Amino acid sequence: MKKFVNDPKNFVPEMLRGLALANPDTLTYEPRHNLIMRAGAPRPDKVSVVQGSGSGHEPAHVMCVGKGMLDAACPGDVFSAPPADYVYETVKLVASPRGVLLLVNNYTGDRMAFEMAEELAQADDVEVRTLYVDDDVSVQDSTYTVGRRGVAGNFFVMKAVGAAAERGAGLDEVHRIGEKVNSVTRTMGMALTACTPPAKGSPLFELPDDEIEMGVGIHGEPGRKREKLQSADEMVAELVTAVVDDLPYASGDGVALMVNGLGGTPISELYLVHGLAHQQLTERGIDIHRSYVGEYCTSLDMAGASITLVRLDDEIESLLTDPAETPIRVF
Amino acid sequence: MKKFVNDPKNFVPEMLRGLALANPDTLTYEPRHNLIMRAGAPRPDKVSVVQGSGSGHEPAHVMCVGKGMLDAACPGDVFSAPPADYVYETVKLVASPRGVLLLVNNYTGDRMAFEMAEELAQADDVEVRTLYVDDDVSVQDSTYTVGRRGVAGNFFVMKAVGAAAERGAGLDEVHRIGEKVNSVTRTMGMALTACTPPAKGSPLFELPDDEIEMGVGIHGEPGRKREKLQSADEMVAELVTAVVDDLPYASGDGVALMVNGLGGTPISELYLVHGLAHQQLTERGIDIHRSYVGEYCTSLDMAGASITLVRLDDEIESLLTDPAETPIRVF
Repeated sequence: MKKFVNDPKNFVPEMLRGLALANPDTLTYEPRHNLIMRAGAPRPDKVSVVQGSGSGHEPAHVMCVGKGMLDAACPGDVFSAPPADYVYETVKLVASPRGVLLLVNNYTGDRMAFEMAEELAQADDVEVRTLYVDDDVSVQDSTYTVGRRGVAGNFFVMKAVGAAAERGAGLDEVHRIGEKVNSVTRTMGMALTACTPPAKGSPLFELPDDEIEMGVGIHGEPGRKREKLQSADEMVAELVTAVVDDLPYASGDGVALMVNGLGGTPISELYLVHGLAHQQLTERGIDIHRSYVGEYCTSLDMAGASITLVRLDDEIESLLTDPAETPIRVF
Repeated sequence: MKKFVNDPKNFVPEMLRGLALANPDTLTYEPRHNLIMRAGAPRPDKVSVVQGSGSGHEPAHVMCVGKGMLDAACPGDVFSAPPADYVYETVKLVASPRGVLLLVNNYTGDRMAFEMAEELAQADDVEVRTLYVDDDVSVQDSTYTVGRRGVAGNFFVMKAVGAAAERGAGLDEVHRIGEKVNSVTRTMGMALTACTPPAKGSPLFELPDDEIEMGVGIHGEPGRKREKLQSADEMVAELVTAVVDDLPYASGDGVALMVNGLGGTPISELYLVHGLAHQQLTERGIDIHRSYVGEYCTSLDMAGASITLVRLDDEIESLLTDPAETPIRVF
């Protein structure tokens, strides 16, 4: 294993400490429950939005805490759901009189932790609602899920509910918007290589030099099939077709297009993929209003990418366009 | 080779096309000379700033074209300087009556191309000046340079001159600011793995599973030495010490700290590195005013990182704080 790591047990806390030190004015790291909070949260005039999941998917979700995005993120260890009591503590810390929305990618472990935390918080009279994201079209049920997995499309849900909460929408309305965005968002990803969790120290699965995993999960879970490595054109076509056919997206639809890197793929390749996806979608009559290219939901150091589409209407597009501030500074 | 690539000969043009399609309102791709231009450039009231270099270092430099940054970028093929006549065409396209500043990382091939372009443009009565960046402390001369190499610290030069040009500073003043920032900026990087150029199809050099290249160049050039893989604490200490001792940075100095990923290292590890560097610098009495963590100047898919320090004064800090817009959208 070739990584920047000290004791693998401290990988997540050391990352969170480095994140908070880079953003001293906007973020707080609370080491006792391993959570990242937005400075000034909770605000009494605003629904608080919280997301948690296993670590290893950064920038999801600890690097998405900020104005117009999350009020707190409670990560678990690498590829492990956060403990229910840490989620509960997070909810208590950001409990606003307007309520708390919990965003959860659909994995069995995360659902269990967040459901328990929701019950505990409700017993404390905190108004809480939970919203599940399940945008991954590659498989119906899978290693860690009943139903579809939540992957990079989660960012659009987070951005839209974050913007709605910032505008002052109530908990029911914020929840409605999140459900709506999730319902028109679809993603599929593929792996060129496996990833290596720090505590394991070796690749999570075997992938021969000439093969790819089409429809891979963000924890290295199997997807639809193993295939021979192909040209970028062919691999992008397979992703685009799977995503378009699922909703389906139709000629005349206006969409947001995300090309998300899985951690080990350089941004040069992601822009190349974007160009090919843009062309293939345009040929289908689909109109790309907004493009997002970069790393949003990764799988440690996995080489690979996912493609996400969101069918836009005026409401969703307006929420996506609202200002947001995240710890990830470009310049 | 496992990459998103069609014909490797088209890797750079296909990337540039994808970049322009993602930013239709702000960028223009000019395929004939393989350049990216800012919409509305040149502006008659503003010095134009141009950077070029081999490709494979993205986001440097084609993804740095925008308000408060570059007016144009003219990339070469992967790890190859742009042809002199393409640089010349770029200068002509963005020639402003206020003049053109060329930013060049110090590599022999890039110097040749830009010096020739500068002469050609001056013969056309375009006012041009060139500024060389050489922030890499790891080696004095190297495979592709006489003198030190220019690496990720280049971003601070680009940001400062871009801000100064946006404020309306003249060519001499913009040049003075760039020289000043370069003079207080130092970087060193290290590789955990080699990188694979698309046209070569195999790793550029051999690095055993238990070794690192300390002081590596961004084209895989040798650095100071091969070492056994160590803990993150130890590797960061070696980078920090080399950078601090070179200028040197002293107790009481206020600095900007950049942790730059080389393309294959996930952002979780970069934030972990940032936390360690922050602590080690603080223990030396160095005061970190601003942190930058992410990918700024990469080496294709190389796993590794570099650390950059800039000694700040009020002028530099103010220029770094000015607004800038780049194609890389977070949300």
